[in-house]
Amino acid sequence: MLPFARVTIIGLGLIGSSVARAIRAQMPGVRITGYDSDAGVRDHARSLNFCDDITDTAGTSVIDADLVLLCVPVGAMGAVAAEFAGDLPADAIVSDVGSCKVSVFEALSAALPGVTIIPAHPVAGTEKSGPDAGFATLFKGRWCILTPSENAPEVATERLRSFWQRLGADVETMDARHHDMVLAITSHLPHLIAYTIVGTANDLEEVTQSEVIKYSAGGFRDFTRIAASDPVMWRDVFLSNKDAVLEMLQRFSEDLTALQRAIRYDKGDELEALFTRTRAIRRSIVEQGQDDDAPDFGRKH
Amino acid sequence: MLPFARVTIIGLGLIGSSVARAIRAQMPGVRITGYDSDAGVRDHARSLNFCDDITDTAGTSVIDADLVLLCVPVGAMGAVAAEFAGDLPADAIVSDVGSCKVSVFEALSAALPGVTIIPAHPVAGTEKSGPDAGFATLFKGRWCILTPSENAPEVATERLRSFWQRLGADVETMDARHHDMVLAITSHLPHLIAYTIVGTANDLEEVTQSEVIKYSAGGFRDFTRIAASDPVMWRDVFLSNKDAVLEMLQRFSEDLTALQRAIRYDKGDELEALFTRTRAIRRSIVEQGQDDDAPDFGRKH
Repeated sequence: MLPFARVTIIGLGLIGSSVARAIRAQMPGVRITGYDSDAGVRDHARSLNFCDDITDTAGTSVIDADLVLLCVPVGAMGAVAAEFAGDLPADAIVSDVGSCKVSVFEALSAALPGVTIIPAHPVAGTEKSGPDAGFATLFKGRWCILTPSENAPEVATERLRSFWQRLGADVETMDARHHDMVLAITSHLPHLIAYTIVGTANDLEEVTQSEVIKYSAGGFRDFTRIAASDPVMWRDVFLSNKDAVLEMLQRFSEDLTALQRAIRYDKGDELEALFTRTRAIRRSIVEQGQDDDAPDFGRKH
Repeated sequence: MLPFARVTIIGLGLIGSSVARAIRAQMPGVRITGYDSDAGVRDHARSLNFCDDITDTAGTSVIDADLVLLCVPVGAMGAVAAEFAGDLPADAIVSDVGSCKVSVFEALSAALPGVTIIPAHPVAGTEKSGPDAGFATLFKGRWCILTPSENAPEVATERLRSFWQRLGADVETMDARHHDMVLAITSHLPHLIAYTIVGTANDLEEVTQSEVIKYSAGGFRDFTRIAASDPVMWRDVFLSNKDAVLEMLQRFSEDLTALQRAIRYDKGDELEALFTRTRAIRRSIVEQGQDDDAPDFGRKH
């Protein structure tokens, strides 16, 4: 049995359009309604035809939904929820795909009093944005984390779990606060660091931008991929998960200072010990199917 | 005409074995002699058969060479050069593939007085190590930087340029000191940061190692690839290019502190402006053929 019959997706970018395509592929009986606040995106999404219907207002999009999935930047969740609050069926479940869960749950709870809200976060994506960037297999073999509050109805959580499993994801549930801490280290801090170093390289006077680009295969280019991610989405993530991000950043800075000191005082043994330890973590990630073992991410040579 | 007829490769890991394989593929007339200080690597390399001959001492390996290419960690260059100094033909050219050029030139000059030394650095590699990891197309479309000293014979530089071009590389010449500054930002600092964050994640108490691995697709896993690079090679790089690395690290830390402050004080506009700027650099790298445009490095989904 399908966990939901009528799904509304609000926000038709990389993630929203991937969810729609994945539903089409895995649950063809589901009716998909889409909405995006950008009229140009709505028109383009209509031509891509991954929704059964795309409405011109958020309210119209939810009228007969049994699942409303918000795929907008985390800072925009509350406002869009307020837009459709009056049109939401009483038994609809509202969920999202945002990368911070405490702040999103607070914003949705305030905008949608009495509604069943089960926040979720599929840990998947690429550096591309917009409705063209989505694809049906984005969630396959990736984890989706649900963060139901203590008084969330279990049956709603189970329906959402089944929904994400059908899209190919492995599902885990977790306390929202813990989620935000875990993602601060596995996702938010890596993005922050990548954005920083790409900015640093761009601002140098001794090294030209052309040189940075030409010799980027030495490692730098890996960081530029992450630093090409959607600017508004990431602005919102850092502001919405501020405490956990600042906490992780503080630890990172301490470790970086220790390494700086090891270099300054020629402590080769310390460097080698760390570099050997980090190799083992890569091995575990590959063994557990979270990355490919192909050298250099399988880039063509 | 072949730029060299008899090439000796010392150090048969990822780079050395890739050079041998690339010579076989692109200049089949060249005789390749190999040497590695590790007897196990020598035996294994013999079975892989990418050299015409593999000798048991460094001295024997260079006896009739017209090019000797050192593919060992930068901290080991001087010692291995001293080992074969007495056996080197008078007209042989000595080069290397190390990631730091000032310190390597100093070490080789001290060990090989009167010898023509043209340092080189092919900006290419993967996170894998050892003779099995090499492949013939590693240098194709990548840059190789030569850093001849002011009194290096031009004809020697041109022969080495031709050699690397035949292996598929684009060749640039540059002052050694400038090279070390350029690579500090495009390669050394990215590695240092990747090693640091993987270490930070591994040391957390609030987030388990299993969680770090499971949710690494949020960005972290990109860093683990770089942090899986050869520990000894990278230890040597940081110690040998200390000044430039510490200089770049200082700038990075300042920029990171500025971003930290922007997050703390909710300066969303500053964040968004930086994140938009960094996107453009990614675009240039892809446009100039230094990375693939496929989403997520073309990982399978």
